Amino acid sequence: MNQTVRAHTNIALIKYWGKKDDQLRLPLMSSLSMTLDKFYTDTRIEQSATGNAFYLNNIKQPGKSADRVFAYLKLLQEKFAVSGNLAIYSTNHVPTAAGLASSSSAFAALAGAFCDCYGITVNKKELSILARMGSGSASRSVYGGFAIWQKGSNSSDSYAYALDETPTLDLHLLVIELDQMPKKLSSTAGMKAAQTSPFFTPWIERNEDELNAMIAAIKQQDFSTIGKIAELNASEMHAVNLTAQPGFTYFEPATIAAINLVHTLRAQGIECYYTIDAGPNLKILCQLRNVKEITKEFETKFKNVNIIDATFGSGISYLN
Amino acid sequence: MNQTVRAHTNIALIKYWGKKDDQLRLPLMSSLSMTLDKFYTDTRIEQSATGNAFYLNNIKQPGKSADRVFAYLKLLQEKFAVSGNLAIYSTNHVPTAAGLASSSSAFAALAGAFCDCYGITVNKKELSILARMGSGSASRSVYGGFAIWQKGSNSSDSYAYALDETPTLDLHLLVIELDQMPKKLSSTAGMKAAQTSPFFTPWIERNEDELNAMIAAIKQQDFSTIGKIAELNASEMHAVNLTAQPGFTYFEPATIAAINLVHTLRAQGIECYYTIDAGPNLKILCQLRNVKEITKEFETKFKNVNIIDATFGSGISYLN
Repeated sequence: MNQTVRAHTNIALIKYWGKKDDQLRLPLMSSLSMTLDKFYTDTRIEQSATGNAFYLNNIKQPGKSADRVFAYLKLLQEKFAVSGNLAIYSTNHVPTAAGLASSSSAFAALAGAFCDCYGITVNKKELSILARMGSGSASRSVYGGFAIWQKGSNSSDSYAYALDETPTLDLHLLVIELDQMPKKLSSTAGMKAAQTSPFFTPWIERNEDELNAMIAAIKQQDFSTIGKIAELNASEMHAVNLTAQPGFTYFEPATIAAINLVHTLRAQGIECYYTIDAGPNLKILCQLRNVKEITKEFETKFKNVNIIDATFGSGISYLN
Repeated sequence: MNQTVRAHTNIALIKYWGKKDDQLRLPLMSSLSMTLDKFYTDTRIEQSATGNAFYLNNIKQPGKSADRVFAYLKLLQEKFAVSGNLAIYSTNHVPTAAGLASSSSAFAALAGAFCDCYGITVNKKELSILARMGSGSASRSVYGGFAIWQKGSNSSDSYAYALDETPTLDLHLLVIELDQMPKKLSSTAGMKAAQTSPFFTPWIERNEDELNAMIAAIKQQDFSTIGKIAELNASEMHAVNLTAQPGFTYFEPATIAAINLVHTLRAQGIECYYTIDAGPNLKILCQLRNVKEITKEFETKFKNVNIIDATFGSGISYLN
């Protein structure tokens, strides 16, 4: 009881970018992700006699930033017919400089710690569903390696499962932090706006084929095809944003400079591909032999860039 | 005979971005443009006893840059069963700093001057077809104001016609020259690559509806709707490029900064919309009352920016 639960952040290679149910966080598409070793959240929950409290990195969070956490835990309490005040102790090992959303690791760890706190026994599928209710992408952080979140049709069949928790594939993801500016538009607002794009429906219609092509490439350990599909899928997400009505973009000027550098590197035979989420920073997919060269090229071109070299992380774990 | 023929540059508000026949320059979609007053080409052609020669801005052009012109004129000679060497005298009133493609005005003026040189009588529809054979967009520069290039199904029904040669609509187009770098990819190469995008077909399927919506907005003199459709259509073109396989973009870092400024200005109530062609520069659609404010904002934000305020230009004309 009251163990610390560790969950790692994941990056989608086939993106989740649209909800069909805001409350239950049911997605309009299936997604596929890579769980990362370098970024994780440790969370422990205790029942409390003195009221709810949320400590993040040892600092008690004020009402507003704790609200989403408590609303989520209240939802879980109702689901399991349990009650009481809770004290949450979280440590985020996601460097703020990385510009990565930590909600995938945060809500997966919260779901795990909640069950641990109340002695609720769940399997990984059930845990994935609980994590999904906090943040869609958290459903995938239950697993290490490659995970697939099948969209499903309702809350009970919309969960993630492991495609390969311990891949032997040589795959690195370089987080290229170009810009630390806060997001211009939340993911929730962006996903909603994206649905006004004339390309949104064509994109959704491609989801199953794209997912299956990615699964096949992973099974064949085909780095080039994995990279190509991931880059196309991320480009589709940002193309959908650009053509929303009205259009919007998470790109900043440095994003285009970084995309152009990826194209240049590739033309020079340094194989790499990018993916981009709801922010200006690129994540570069590459293989070990090119990590140093790519890092050097980005450090040369971008002043103050911060680069973190990540590879596969493990699934949810329980620390004593 | 041997008159100087003047044709103005046009900017597409519904883009031409895909050929179904490279040789005949037959397009995959219909397009709609605004002919501009500020940019034009003056061309005169004379039969020559001393060999072919192409003078641009009083400078005789070397073989390579004259090749496309002579290949085009040879095509016209074959079509009309005429022959002989030709001397071409062209003056481009398209400031090089404007970063505008001058091929629309150049080939419309060439087509007109060719017919004049040989005393060939053609109507505007026939002239539009001849201009199209030199450069697709040139088909629209035969007309002033708003012109529509109907895609047609073969060379004889793929031509432009006037929607309104003398619009009374308050519409300005500010050419925002951010970057003078040469194009990374020619329009011809870009159009070809764009067809590998999964969004290319969905975009083509929308062409008739988009065109009709734009025609209706122009007839209703509805500036806001004209701007929205133009911005969406240009965004679709660039979204298609981004999602080509492999993806590419004409955007440079400054392009994103400029797009973000358009969004900011609009949020402040300064109504403006952008369109972008096969290059990094924005063209801003706005109304007269906002020209000064928008110009000031761009000049403040971008050092060395060059801004040209254009409005409707006239169709092809004959000078003595």
